Amino acid sequence: MDPDSVAKAFVEHYYSTFDANRPGLANLYQDSSMLTFEGQKIQGTQAITAKLNSLPFQQCQHTISTVDCQPSGTGGMLVFVSGNLQLSGEQHALKFSQMFHLMPTPQGSFYVQNDIFRLNYA
Amino acid sequence: MDPDSVAKAFVEHYYSTFDANRPGLANLYQDSSMLTFEGQKIQGTQAITAKLNSLPFQQCQHTISTVDCQPSGTGGMLVFVSGNLQLSGEQHALKFSQMFHLMPTPQGSFYVQNDIFRLNYA
Repeated sequence: MDPDSVAKAFVEHYYSTFDANRPGLANLYQDSSMLTFEGQKIQGTQAITAKLNSLPFQQCQHTISTVDCQPSGTGGMLVFVSGNLQLSGEQHALKFSQMFHLMPTPQGSFYVQNDIFRLNYA
Repeated sequence: MDPDSVAKAFVEHYYSTFDANRPGLANLYQDSSMLTFEGQKIQGTQAITAKLNSLPFQQCQHTISTVDCQPSGTGGMLVFVSGNLQLSGEQHALKFSQMFHLMPTPQGSFYVQNDIFRLNYA
């Protein structure tokens, strides 16, 4: 599979898991993983999933606008996403940008080494 | 210097160079560098600087809203930026997001290995 296809497949998997089964995101992180969420720095699978599961909304729907990817030069892959986040009961979707640094696992899959999320305020 | 300070210093240097002396950005890239600009993939100092210098505006002013950074796990540093881009003669600024993967040089400085730029359309 070419990198762009891997990136798109990852992004679809990530956000569909986020929207339908948020605790399942734990499988995508490891203890070395880092998340910066709206400027807050969090490290490790347990702390990251606790943060994601504690966000002050239960139901949401991500819609992806763009996915860009590049090899990171170290066997990994950088994935840059922009999109919309619709929260249940809210009239307007929020715009967001997010980047992932995916690193290969021995099993031939990828995990998220780096994750930076920002809402794009209008 | 801590990583956040390095990231902020890089970002200030990058955008002040972009706004005042765009050809000077050539010093920040190497032949292995990759730029994805609004989905267009470009590699190498010469092609990247040609692209940046050929953008259809001469004068611009970047204003930075947020800078996030993380070590990339490979000696490098990931820097995620959001901000506004004011073009000369335009009434409204454009919002953008951009990520850089900085890698150390033997001289103790950094170069841009990865660069992904997207405008955030409202």
